[in-house]
Amino acid sequence: MGGDNAPESVILGAEMALMRYPGLRFVLFGNRFVLEPLLQEVKLVKAACEIVHTEVAIAGDDKPSHAVRRGRNSSMWLAISSVKEGKACAIVSAGNTGALMAMSKLILRTLPGISRPAIAALLPTMRGECVMLDLGANVESDEHDLYKFAIMGDAFARAVLGMNRPRVGLLNVGSEELKGREEVKAAHALLKNSNMDINYHGFIEGNDITGGAVDVVVTDGFTGNVALKTAEGAARLIRTYLKDAFKSSPVSQVGALFATGALKAVKEKLDDRKRNGAMFLGLNGIAVKSHGGADAFSFCNAIGVAVELVEHNINTRIMQDIKLSQAPQIIALDAIEGEAD
Amino acid sequence: MGGDNAPESVILGAEMALMRYPGLRFVLFGNRFVLEPLLQEVKLVKAACEIVHTEVAIAGDDKPSHAVRRGRNSSMWLAISSVKEGKACAIVSAGNTGALMAMSKLILRTLPGISRPAIAALLPTMRGECVMLDLGANVESDEHDLYKFAIMGDAFARAVLGMNRPRVGLLNVGSEELKGREEVKAAHALLKNSNMDINYHGFIEGNDITGGAVDVVVTDGFTGNVALKTAEGAARLIRTYLKDAFKSSPVSQVGALFATGALKAVKEKLDDRKRNGAMFLGLNGIAVKSHGGADAFSFCNAIGVAVELVEHNINTRIMQDIKLSQAPQIIALDAIEGEAD
Repeated sequence: MGGDNAPESVILGAEMALMRYPGLRFVLFGNRFVLEPLLQEVKLVKAACEIVHTEVAIAGDDKPSHAVRRGRNSSMWLAISSVKEGKACAIVSAGNTGALMAMSKLILRTLPGISRPAIAALLPTMRGECVMLDLGANVESDEHDLYKFAIMGDAFARAVLGMNRPRVGLLNVGSEELKGREEVKAAHALLKNSNMDINYHGFIEGNDITGGAVDVVVTDGFTGNVALKTAEGAARLIRTYLKDAFKSSPVSQVGALFATGALKAVKEKLDDRKRNGAMFLGLNGIAVKSHGGADAFSFCNAIGVAVELVEHNINTRIMQDIKLSQAPQIIALDAIEGEAD
Repeated sequence: MGGDNAPESVILGAEMALMRYPGLRFVLFGNRFVLEPLLQEVKLVKAACEIVHTEVAIAGDDKPSHAVRRGRNSSMWLAISSVKEGKACAIVSAGNTGALMAMSKLILRTLPGISRPAIAALLPTMRGECVMLDLGANVESDEHDLYKFAIMGDAFARAVLGMNRPRVGLLNVGSEELKGREEVKAAHALLKNSNMDINYHGFIEGNDITGGAVDVVVTDGFTGNVALKTAEGAARLIRTYLKDAFKSSPVSQVGALFATGALKAVKEKLDDRKRNGAMFLGLNGIAVKSHGGADAFSFCNAIGVAVELVEHNINTRIMQDIKLSQAPQIIALDAIEGEAD
């Protein structure tokens, strides 16, 4: 029931997802009297879903704390609980981000060794795509959080982008070791000296994100959220400039006509709908957040992200890596103690 | 002597600036044997400058601490000192940013009431331009720093953009009062309850920067630096997409031909050279940093920023505002003490 175009775009997106992944099955959480008429239009979903009825839905502007206290019978709460209870492999929602994160943390809990989950999503780059996290699950992160974001982002890139040894970069204000916030410098030291098999590239700067310097961009949720939205704003400004310029004279209008294909290709490359689906990484269950304004195509892609993460056992990978990341430190400590004997 | 194309672009930029502002006079700090032959080519500068000779120049990759210790005879140090000594109204440099900031702080000192200077620059928006600060002078800022950045940014917008009551926004991850970092929420409270004549808009998000929601964007230097560079990276990615797309087919190439004017107009709007010249705000003297890669046109614009700031007495405005911002707090305190008697 969440998102600007719900439940229509959710159900139509599920129909598209069933064409792509015929083996899927859905549990739809929401108002039966709204959902059932819509299901008449979508044969695949109708044959592959069950409805769990509830009349309570979290609104887009509900405060997370309020949603958590009052929303125990909501479609969002019940959907997340179905993952906890093993009735579903993943939840996908286009609803209130803050409420979804608060409820997911409460119901699913974090993975062993993870204290703060992170929001991860894909961004376009000169070389293809990269994963960036955290995009706003937290407003502050210390070096240990950032180190774990790196491990989770690495697992995400391997699972969703099919990469072998993704290059991991730490977002900073300069590439020199002396520059930057204390926690960023400390995370740099952790990553550089890590015994993990992380392909750590070092510091990157804002322009390196879309420049494609790395496959995984690690940052705190405040900086990540601002950077992502600033990039979206810059893209929107340029689109507006282009539109205005192509309308400005008859010659330009002819140009736009001949350039239709080219402009369409650019639009497609920048199409956020293709990259819809941000994962809440670090939770004991798979929760994918679709953009609130998602249409059916966009929501279908968010379902696709959930499918990839389930199929590639993202959480098993993360847990193995987190365990590994903790192990070498203990061994190193033993060796030092051994010398002292 | 600073910057990738120095001293040629500096001298040619000065020549262009003299066409725009015929009353200017320059003191050129650098190697006389390099500068003098170049001056033969620029009649206006030659007639309106003196040279202070030094053979020491700060390199682009010198560490600021090293530059400060070892660079006392450098062109950068001597140029900043000339402002301190009142021999020049402002310094403009395309050299090493960190070194320029460290030396400027040491030589010029901060204005009364300001503990941290900030780097401010102009960005393009849907409505025209906005001022954003801090772009990297500091990596951390508390609420009082942010509050003073707002006051300084307001003065900058009035001086350089000629605005009457610029709208001031605080960069955050959401527009709700509950969201964001502690220091950002505290700065919000300071600005909301300020007795100053600041046209405070409230929180803005990353996409609002180029969206033109406000005229002054206030943020800490870490976030500001990342956001600015991320926006630059996004613009570069789109330019690459466009170039590739227009080359992709004969029809698109024809389109590009007809669209030459339109594409040129967009390129011009996005031209960073027009907005070259970042001010180090909060120092007891005017220091303007040109982009390191500046060409003559770009460097001329950085000189233009310095001229505007001198002509509009930016520092007098800031000092008056900082005094005002401190005054009401003292009065309020007196009233409370009075009641207690």
